Amino acid sequence: MKNRVLPILALLLVLTVALSAFLPSDTFAQAFSKTNNTYNGKTPKYVFLFIGDGTSFPQIAAAEMYLGAQKKTTAPQTKALDFTNFPATGVAATFDSDSFIPDSASTGTSIASGIKTGNGIINMDPQKQTSVEPITRKLKDKGYKIGVVSSVSIDHATPAVFYANEASRNNYYEIGLQLANSNFDYFGGGGFKDPEGKNTKMPNPQNILDVAKKNGFTVASTKDEILQLNNNSGKVIAINPELDADKAMPYEIDRKDGELKLSDYVRKGIEVLDNKNGFFMMVESGKIDWANHANDAAASIHDTIEFNNAVMEAYKVYEKYPNDTLIIVTGDHECGGLTIGFAGTEYETFFNKLEKQTLSYIGFDKIINDYKKSTKPENYKFEDLLPQIKTAFGLTASADGTSGLVLTASEYSRLQEAFKRSMEAKADRNYTDHEKIIYGTYEPLTVTLTHILNNKAGLSFTTYSHTGLPVPVYAVGLGHELFNGSYDNTDIYKKMAAITKADQK
Amino acid sequence: MKNRVLPILALLLVLTVALSAFLPSDTFAQAFSKTNNTYNGKTPKYVFLFIGDGTSFPQIAAAEMYLGAQKKTTAPQTKALDFTNFPATGVAATFDSDSFIPDSASTGTSIASGIKTGNGIINMDPQKQTSVEPITRKLKDKGYKIGVVSSVSIDHATPAVFYANEASRNNYYEIGLQLANSNFDYFGGGGFKDPEGKNTKMPNPQNILDVAKKNGFTVASTKDEILQLNNNSGKVIAINPELDADKAMPYEIDRKDGELKLSDYVRKGIEVLDNKNGFFMMVESGKIDWANHANDAAASIHDTIEFNNAVMEAYKVYEKYPNDTLIIVTGDHECGGLTIGFAGTEYETFFNKLEKQTLSYIGFDKIINDYKKSTKPENYKFEDLLPQIKTAFGLTASADGTSGLVLTASEYSRLQEAFKRSMEAKADRNYTDHEKIIYGTYEPLTVTLTHILNNKAGLSFTTYSHTGLPVPVYAVGLGHELFNGSYDNTDIYKKMAAITKADQK
Repeated sequence: MKNRVLPILALLLVLTVALSAFLPSDTFAQAFSKTNNTYNGKTPKYVFLFIGDGTSFPQIAAAEMYLGAQKKTTAPQTKALDFTNFPATGVAATFDSDSFIPDSASTGTSIASGIKTGNGIINMDPQKQTSVEPITRKLKDKGYKIGVVSSVSIDHATPAVFYANEASRNNYYEIGLQLANSNFDYFGGGGFKDPEGKNTKMPNPQNILDVAKKNGFTVASTKDEILQLNNNSGKVIAINPELDADKAMPYEIDRKDGELKLSDYVRKGIEVLDNKNGFFMMVESGKIDWANHANDAAASIHDTIEFNNAVMEAYKVYEKYPNDTLIIVTGDHECGGLTIGFAGTEYETFFNKLEKQTLSYIGFDKIINDYKKSTKPENYKFEDLLPQIKTAFGLTASADGTSGLVLTASEYSRLQEAFKRSMEAKADRNYTDHEKIIYGTYEPLTVTLTHILNNKAGLSFTTYSHTGLPVPVYAVGLGHELFNGSYDNTDIYKKMAAITKADQK
Repeated sequence: MKNRVLPILALLLVLTVALSAFLPSDTFAQAFSKTNNTYNGKTPKYVFLFIGDGTSFPQIAAAEMYLGAQKKTTAPQTKALDFTNFPATGVAATFDSDSFIPDSASTGTSIASGIKTGNGIINMDPQKQTSVEPITRKLKDKGYKIGVVSSVSIDHATPAVFYANEASRNNYYEIGLQLANSNFDYFGGGGFKDPEGKNTKMPNPQNILDVAKKNGFTVASTKDEILQLNNNSGKVIAINPELDADKAMPYEIDRKDGELKLSDYVRKGIEVLDNKNGFFMMVESGKIDWANHANDAAASIHDTIEFNNAVMEAYKVYEKYPNDTLIIVTGDHECGGLTIGFAGTEYETFFNKLEKQTLSYIGFDKIINDYKKSTKPENYKFEDLLPQIKTAFGLTASADGTSGLVLTASEYSRLQEAFKRSMEAKADRNYTDHEKIIYGTYEPLTVTLTHILNNKAGLSFTTYSHTGLPVPVYAVGLGHELFNGSYDNTDIYKKMAAITKADQK
């Protein structure tokens, strides 16, 4: 008796787990059942999906207002980012199976593979039992070439969902290895966070780039090598020569003239991927998110403008092949709780004040660290950094006849308090509840400087994390009309799959 | 010679002024020139325009998450407000000719009449020289009956732009008089702020309601009178029996069972306005804006849910006459800089905590004022108000075994500080820079309570004013497809006018 019941129980258990893995996405989808995910038109040859990480209506509006304000007209005027003029506009909900406030792994999985899942999970169900196939693999099987581009490390969550399955986004070695073992055609932008597998539990990890080369990838990592890539280069990994500590490309606000930028990787990708069967390219601007995490509005705006430039490289393909191209532009979630408004400035904004900022929060963190290293602790003095504060943010202690923005007495004392904390070792900073809110996990002096400049410009942030705001979806080209309306982020996959017939054998 | 030059100069001056009045709207429109404002289909008989004042993506998402969280499921789930499932969704920019952060008069003028204008102006150009005609007058001339409904006073900026021209939204008497002299058919909801002309410069002001009655209006101001209105009542002004100090209907969170609500005024309006030539009804939910000004998330959510109920009254008309109806739902601008996220709660939200709030900020202000009046100043003691704080917001000083939300030590001390300020006469409150930001112009204790409860729920505000976020536009019915896409708020007028042929003779 026992021998017959156990196998049945085991079978039931397996069935239950398998079913429950897919129940959530059905339940979530109900609220948005009215969106149209069927398509009977021509299938596009050239498909572009642009994802601004941490990019929603506030980030886009702020960039448009910044560009408009640069015109120095008296009446307010926005300069539309080109992609917001695309003929289709949709609004997508971003919550995941864990929270109304999702992360890039879960939302990326929803966009790439069409299911809801939990925080940190790359293309697996919420129970981390079942893998799901991203649209890229399905399109590869249909003959498309596949490109994945990101301004952050190419093993980061958003690019990863387009080529990997992994229980945790933090398994960088495992993710990178799946890249190296993929049959995809073009990877461009940031580098690898753990190429040698220092943090993996896998036995005898091989260097990811060695594996990639063995698998036929050309690895280009100087500007010359990258610029020489072409349609005959075969499978390519193009790693930006300038990388930060996180293996990401520099912020646009920090990038030096002549260094490669996101739009360069899109243009090069189009050249490399071009073939008679067409291609699918996902392009992520990853540091819009990071800038908003750090509450650095100026860094966010400059990266958002370059994101638009990158989209416009794809738009050239659309202009050449309007009957064969589809371009989709979206965000994965909002970040920072950015608002165009601040209690202290009420109904006014002063976007031109953000023009004073000449480097990102990361750039100023470095100035602080250099100062700490080069100065004896007993000599730490806030006033020492005033020249650098003026250069970096345009903020001055008193009206000095230049075009600086004068700090009020209370702003000055906030900076002095933050300086004290920044001069302490991180382990020694026992924050009050209030300090936890005003500094987060960021360098106290730097984040206080960006807060002050943002507020003077009439902008504010509410968090160092993501928020639950929906994201816009813009589209132009074959099937773009499907992207109008309000829907779930899993519908972005469903619409792309319908238009490309990705789920049809 | 002089005699001939002067008239020519005068003519040129007049032409320049006349032209410049219309130049701004053309310039602004350029960025959004790609939206489709032409329509060749059937003209709808029943046109509804719903405006949530201060209502944008955050207010709508918060209400949907609150409703979803009420299901007490473990996985996050939103319950869509019905109108967000309408087949068309658009995104409208809201800046006016003064600022990226507009007011309800300028944005209302853009929606009602299709031009950009300045802060505070009702249906006139930015120079306050030229009046423009709202769509309501054009449709009245075509035979439609016209209804204007608002939960705030019926002479407030948003309803006013649908029947008045006035250099300042604050000229309540002049605005109300234009209502009384209009040939429109149904006004419902709030009352008049200056019915007797106490603040007008006009000589011998007559009571607005007397003028209205003389002009043939039936004025109903009890629940019975209002419920008895019907299709034979002729021209009607229905004033809610319960009005606050601003002549607005109560907040939904404060409304007593059996008292009339916004959806009642829509249902009654449909009955009164019904006729063979059709009707146009504008319905404003005005206190979503006020709740967000005051940073009262719960009051905002409850009014947003009732706003949806009001839309659903119109939807019954659509269901009955799908080939004769158009319903548009939008906001005029965002308010408060509401975000679904807070630095202290990071990736979590706790919407069910907002269920603890049982009255609006206005309701708690009254408790504070009653306490001040009934207590000698030397006896003012924060602890006296703890029972009312628990009843109103569910917040408790210590874990007391009930379902209260326990205040942290720093929250408790913030409330004590705010209490001290609230006990002072307003004129004596010489705020520090920090206090100006954390209290705005609101009652310090009340606004600190809503801030604390919002933050515990994972929500934050950044301002007591409006913000520059774009607003969604939802539409169902004849011509709804025109409302997809990204466009300017003046395009809302242009699309409505195209569909109703309002500008064709």
